[in-house]
Order: sequence, then C-alpha cells, then structure tokens
Amino acid sequence: MRNKIKTIAFDADDTLWVNETYFQEAERQFCALLSAYLPAEAAARELFHTEMKNLAIYGYGIKGVMLSMIETASRVTEGKASMQLINKTIELGHELLQRPVELLHGVAETLEQLQGNYRLVMATKGDLLDQERKIKQSGLQGFFHHIEIMSNKKVENYARLLKYLNCAPENFLMLGNSIKSDVLPVLELEAFAGHVPFTTTWLHEQHDAKPEHPNFIELASIADILQHLD
Amino acid sequence: MRNKIKTIAFDADDTLWVNETYFQEAERQFCALLSAYLPAEAAARELFHTEMKNLAIYGYGIKGVMLSMIETASRVTEGKASMQLINKTIELGHELLQRPVELLHGVAETLEQLQGNYRLVMATKGDLLDQERKIKQSGLQGFFHHIEIMSNKKVENYARLLKYLNCAPENFLMLGNSIKSDVLPVLELEAFAGHVPFTTTWLHEQHDAKPEHPNFIELASIADILQHLD
Repeated sequence: MRNKIKTIAFDADDTLWVNETYFQEAERQFCALLSAYLPAEAAARELFHTEMKNLAIYGYGIKGVMLSMIETASRVTEGKASMQLINKTIELGHELLQRPVELLHGVAETLEQLQGNYRLVMATKGDLLDQERKIKQSGLQGFFHHIEIMSNKKVENYARLLKYLNCAPENFLMLGNSIKSDVLPVLELEAFAGHVPFTTTWLHEQHDAKPEHPNFIELASIADILQHLD
Repeated sequence: MRNKIKTIAFDADDTLWVNETYFQEAERQFCALLSAYLPAEAAARELFHTEMKNLAIYGYGIKGVMLSMIETASRVTEGKASMQLINKTIELGHELLQRPVELLHGVAETLEQLQGNYRLVMATKGDLLDQERKIKQSGLQGFFHHIEIMSNKKVENYARLLKYLNCAPENFLMLGNSIKSDVLPVLELEAFAGHVPFTTTWLHEQHDAKPEHPNFIELASIADILQHLD
C-alpha cells in the first residue's frame, strides 16, 4: 500500500483530541444527580437507551446528549425530578461545550511529518458549531486541506467524501479510534484504514473484533503510521 | 450583471421551504404552557433572551431552541415548572424535527429553469442532521451541485464558500429571505444578492432597511429571478 496513499483522513474526537473521557465524566455526574432514584449503573443504562432512541432525529453531539439526559431524568423519576436537577444537567452540557481542547500525545508532531507529502483531511461527526470551535482551538486547522463534519460515518458518507475529494479508494487512508465508524465502512470501500486505540470507547461505538482485511493497519499510537508509510 | 453570474446559491429555510412558520407555532405552544406564570408576550421575550445568550455555544437549529425553551421554563417559573411541562416542550421539538417538508410556491419550477445554465448551490444553516433530512425529503437534492450547511452566515463564511467553489464574487448570486444573513454579507464581498421575502422573519434575522447597492436585487417571489437573468 505504502506508495499508493495520497490522502490521509483523520477522525477528530479521541483520535486528535480527548472527547469520550469528558462525556463519561459528564455522564457520571448526571447519574449521581439521579442517585436518590436509581443506582448509577441503571441510570447510565437508561440514558444510553434514550440516546439510541433519539439518535435518528438528534444525530451526534452534545446538544442531543443534553436533551436525552433531561428526558431520562423525567422518565426515571416518574416526573418527580426537580427543576434544580434539570438546571444542573444543562450546566453539565454547557461545561462540555466550553471545555478547552486537549490534544492527544504525538498528534501535532505526526501531522507535521505528514504535511507536504500527503493531502490531510479531517473527517469528524458531531455538532457543527462545537466541532468548528474545537478545530479552531486545537491549532491544527492549518494542517488540513479540507475539514468534513459528517452527520454519520457509514459507507455512503465516506463514498460521498471520496467523490468530493476526487480520490480513488486505493489512494485513501482513514485513521481513527473507532473500528465501527473509522475502519469498517472505509475497508468496505476497499480504501485503507488504520485503528488508533483510545483508552475508552462509547458503548455505541464499541466493536470487539478487529477486521481481517489486507487494507487494515493496527497502530499502537498515531505516530506509528509514519513507519507504515515510509 | 446578467451575463456574469455563473453560480447561484439558495438559502433553504423560508426560501425553498417553510420553516419559520413552524418555529413560531412551536414557540406559541411553548408560551401557552407557561401561561400560569406569565403572559405569552413576556414568555416569548424571555425565550428570545435565552436563545441569544446561548447562540454562541449552541449555534442555530432546533436542538438549541429546545434546550433554550427548557432553560427559560425553569427560570421564569423560578424552578416551579413541572416535569410534565418539560416533557411537553421536548415533544414540541420532536414534532419540529419530524415535520414533513413543504416546498414554497414556484421553487421546483425555478430550479428546473435554471438547471444546466448555472451551477446551483444550497447554502443553509442549522442542525446538520435536520437539514440533511429536509434536503432528502424535499426532492430538490438533484438540482444542486453542492450543499453547504454553515454554522453561520457572516462575511467570512461566504468568503470560505466562494473559495471552496472556486468562484469569483462577480460570478456569484445568493438568493434568500434574510437581508441580514443572505444579502448584506454577500454584498460586502461584492457578489450579487437577491432578496426573496417570506411572510414572517425571526426577530434575530430582522433587518428593516433594504440595502442601497448596485448588486442588490429585490424580488417579489423566487420565480422573478428568471427575468433578471434573461
């Protein structure tokens, strides 16, 4: 593959910068708010259930999570939740939306090495404005030829991106922390995909089995991709 | 101008299809939910105040409005709002997010006439997933060379769009219902802009004075643009 790759796309959340850690922290705090009604583990299950129910109309991102938290609080307390609990939930969301961006180890150095030799693209999902904020704050914007904020990361979304980039699958490499969103749909298009593990993965993104595919690259960290491209 | 225009961009909400009417209906219903606490007019003012306060972190779109409604309900009732009121507010949002798309008069016919002679683009703001849903449902997707969902419609956002489209300002015409978002920033770039009035305009988008600019075109309806381009 090595000399075929021309365009490298990067997932953003939990690949370039920390994200899931903050979400899980907010979720823990939310579940603690409900502790008078049900154990934290059950509250987390209820929240996940609400999020999955609403995913088709809310899509990904913090605002949808906030709304699902409020709906969950109302349901599990059978309408007995106080408005103070709702206010605190909104505050948790506002904190998430304003949290400074924390780059992951080796990211800036790796992009610097790749820059000039490859066309670099960011391909991320989530709230439009929130992702734009994080891109600006990250200081990484200048590395990228194009930034795509996607409503989803299915095969058809990647096919559209490749068409837009005018890039053949054999010239495209996607790097990300989610086997489900960053790897499998890309391999299905016969493009290349590298998995960069992050410490925690959202339940919805979990996918245990590593794919058996000649275009799949397993990486220990983002900087490892440099060795594969040499 | 007539023979210079090569690319025509269309705003979507209230230019191609009905939007503000539904938002105002939802807002009226929300204010009615608060009628035990304050008059509808005061509730609407409070909601607008909350929306403006949150605009920088939420951006445009239904999910942000839903969250601002919940926050407003909590504040104006001094924490006495019932969870039933919150549930009803969430329902109002879910209805908005699932409302069928209603094309405005003359839209499909006008796009059909322009297609082939001009590169047509859709340039809209709002929730990513919700706008994608409306585009799909509208049946208009095939007319457009490119669809841009923008986090905002300021001069810098249009400058980025023109750069991406590789289009000089003198070859670009924007059509939309908001003087503030679809006309003024476009004229500032010395591109062309046409105003297609809609029956109602969101307070945040209101702008009384029509611009005095040689590149400004006032239209009574979207089909009128055909005469200006002949």
